[in-house]
Amino acid sequence: MNYQVLDHGYIKLIEHWGSDERIIEAARMSTSGGFVSWAPYEDHSKGDLGLLSYLWNNKHATPFEMAGCIIEVQAPILVFREWHRHRTQSYNEMSARYTPMPNLNYVPTIERLMIGNNSLNKQASGNKLLTQEAAELFQKSIIGTYNALELGYQAALESGIPKELARLIIPVGRYSRMRASANLRNWLAFLTLRDHPKAQWEIQQYAKCVNDILSYLFPRTLGLFNSKS
Amino acid sequence: MNYQVLDHGYIKLIEHWGSDERIIEAARMSTSGGFVSWAPYEDHSKGDLGLLSYLWNNKHATPFEMAGCIIEVQAPILVFREWHRHRTQSYNEMSARYTPMPNLNYVPTIERLMIGNNSLNKQASGNKLLTQEAAELFQKSIIGTYNALELGYQAALESGIPKELARLIIPVGRYSRMRASANLRNWLAFLTLRDHPKAQWEIQQYAKCVNDILSYLFPRTLGLFNSKS
Amino acid sequence: MNYQVLDHGYIKLIEHWGSDERIIEAARMSTSGGFVSWAPYEDHSKGDLGLLSYLWNNKHATPFEMAGCIIEVQAPILVFREWHRHRTQSYNEMSARYTPMPNLNYVPTIERLMIGNNSLNKQASGNKLLTQEAAELFQKSIIGTYNALELGYQAALESGIPKELARLIIPVGRYSRMRASANLRNWLAFLTLRDHPKAQWEIQQYAKCVNDILSYLFPRTLGLFNSKS
Amino acid sequence: MNYQVLDHGYIKLIEHWGSDERIIEAARMSTSGGFVSWAPYEDHSKGDLGLLSYLWNNKHATPFEMAGCIIEVQAPILVFREWHRHRTQSYNEMSARYTPMPNLNYVPTIERLMIGNNSLNKQASGNKLLTQEAAELFQKSIIGTYNALELGYQAALESGIPKELARLIIPVGRYSRMRASANLRNWLAFLTLRDHPKAQWEIQQYAKCVNDILSYLFPRTLGLFNSKS
Repeated sequence: MNYQVLDHGYIKLIEHWGSDERIIEAARMSTSGGFVSWAPYEDHSKGDLGLLSYLWNNKHATPFEMAGCIIEVQAPILVFREWHRHRTQSYNEMSARYTPMPNLNYVPTIERLMIGNNSLNKQASGNKLLTQEAAELFQKSIIGTYNALELGYQAALESGIPKELARLIIPVGRYSRMRASANLRNWLAFLTLRDHPKAQWEIQQYAKCVNDILSYLFPRTLGLFNSKS
Repeated sequence: MNYQVLDHGYIKLIEHWGSDERIIEAARMSTSGGFVSWAPYEDHSKGDLGLLSYLWNNKHATPFEMAGCIIEVQAPILVFREWHRHRTQSYNEMSARYTPMPNLNYVPTIERLMIGNNSLNKQASGNKLLTQEAAELFQKSIIGTYNALELGYQAALESGIPKELARLIIPVGRYSRMRASANLRNWLAFLTLRDHPKAQWEIQQYAKCVNDILSYLFPRTLGLFNSKS
Repeated sequence: MNYQVLDHGYIKLIEHWGSDERIIEAARMSTSGGFVSWAPYEDHSKGDLGLLSYLWNNKHATPFEMAGCIIEVQAPILVFREWHRHRTQSYNEMSARYTPMPNLNYVPTIERLMIGNNSLNKQASGNKLLTQEAAELFQKSIIGTYNALELGYQAALESGIPKELARLIIPVGRYSRMRASANLRNWLAFLTLRDHPKAQWEIQQYAKCVNDILSYLFPRTLGLFNSKS
Repeated sequence: MNYQVLDHGYIKLIEHWGSDERIIEAARMSTSGGFVSWAPYEDHSKGDLGLLSYLWNNKHATPFEMAGCIIEVQAPILVFREWHRHRTQSYNEMSARYTPMPNLNYVPTIERLMIGNNSLNKQASGNKLLTQEAAELFQKSIIGTYNALELGYQAALESGIPKELARLIIPVGRYSRMRASANLRNWLAFLTLRDHPKAQWEIQQYAKCVNDILSYLFPRTLGLFNSKS
């Protein structure tokens, strides 16, 4: 599975383990199968889904640790800065100490820039209204800035400045790349915070793809997650 | 893969993810492949193994989080008590709150009992030497005790005592069962402490099976682990 | 602070760090103080509490990691078995490999035994009603069993059986002792599951003391926690 | 305790808990004091230090989780990017979503720039030798770039661009600020990787201050750490 995100980003599924069935199996460890006779399972055809709902609703979270997936992500550094605060995931990211960063930079669309303009957006600067002209001007100016920074970065590298210092002027709008691994419980915790209207719009776009991948891999669990949250 | 351990225990591989190759791929994220030109990789045929050694020797541990496995374990409670101190693993264990525990109890062999008799064993009681007769007596006596406890447990359950209290007299020699999941980095941390002569002999037997499973799944990484440790 | 719990258990506060104020300070790192002008803080006298509520209600959990405490606990092994599933706490427990376990065993009161008798208790065995007589019989019988097990344990130790094997017949009703450390966020996660009617009654008693200690140390945060949960 | 680091950075001790003595107390939980009679403690005056060495040398790491500290750090974003990979610490950082970032940027000294020039530095670009002139040129050019970026940032904010997007051109050389909390075991893991010649020079400077703070708070433990590593 492969998703284009923002102007130069992507999310790609690398591998997964476990399944909705595996989660049920793990949960049934606690009773050697005995859970089956509980009330919601009298209709045996829906026993497993009943158990899954029960686990979910009662915060029996550990069975959801028996599945998971690894993805590869390309995203602007500012998105990674938020992403890496999720300390239960495993990360391997491109390092600008060891390799020159590719010249890919995030330029928001005018439409995206104007989202900040409504009254609900706490992150807008004060009471200033953003005009269409100002948004277009910012877009042009940021493209120019990215180009100038890349010229400076390349010049520094060519003059013998170590990569780990030449990168000082790399802006947080530049794309980096990583692999991220987590079990399903922790991916759901990620979604709870990032596939959420209060999260920054950019990381929301990535979180929606993660939700889509998980929905494909673990349809019953994500069905519960998406109906409750 | 399926291993018999002690008298009534087992370890069974449920599922794994990742591979030695996946670990290399994750490590190469940091350079977009650029590491290949470093000194040890001039002989390109050994580039990948060279990188794996480099990661291992320099404690670049995160790529080893991109693989892992889930096992099912049956072991005495006292083994689980030690196992569960490894807080980076995920567990789902049989619960004596919800289901009566099966009547399986660990009886050590005479040979095992006598291991405690050498001078290195810090856990032997004082300076008393264990005789063959005393070991045989203990073995007989423990079997009798297990039987008596099972009778008491069943009687309590039958008289209407809740399972969660009837279990008070369950001894730590009784077998329980669980699934355990961890990534490879954390399984290796487990082996470092438990596949080790200072660990209690019983958990060592389980750790040796885990080592065997990991050696089958991730032969290059375990090759490095087993040659260094 | 010192609490007696069950018949031979206790909880003792060893040390704490942080405070409600420290949590606010940490949260304000994100704005260098700028949060103060948000709507709920127009009445400046309640700005800090407003922020604390906001953090709590919006799952901004990391500031609550900037405080915590260490306690010492004496509890039956079956309580520790549940406690240790909380993998974000740090533990140092008495080890029966190194020291003979003291002869302290948990005997539930008749009142406690009869709790299991109501229809809500999912852990009662089937449909058998527990009579007062059966409860008294169990109580007497368990005391006898504990005594017999202690005699067997001492005899084994005296005959030279290593401590780590003599303990096989130690029942999960026996008391052990540990120190446990966690930050406030993780203590609250513990309370969410264990100071909860679905938790086993025994661990609930310990959780209530933890709640009491935390309420003393961090009154504003626990005020929010206890009013919401 | 307060340290100036780099040109505009600092580390400040906010609070600590535990002590070398507390670590010993926690370790002695496992024996209810019985460890004292082990061989190295026959000379009772050095019993505690002997135990501390034993714990350290045998990777009995959990007692070192019974102490810790919280610090406040101001450092360039690229240092925080490395720091935040330590997932066992707790963080609260300034957020450019909510507050305009102060105009503080890291300018390396000529001396620092030339460190990259020796043959050991793997991060130097290829085989190009950095001249004193090129280093001075880079220094001047980076100051100019920082100034230009700040002008662009302020202009964007003033035109009504939301803070969360105006920050796209903020370079990773700009300073941010955070509080970080960890227990001693995890601080030592941080030092193992970051107070190390292979770490980037900038984070090494911060790690040396952390080492200094810990040496003041936990002199015996750090004595062991610094003599072994």
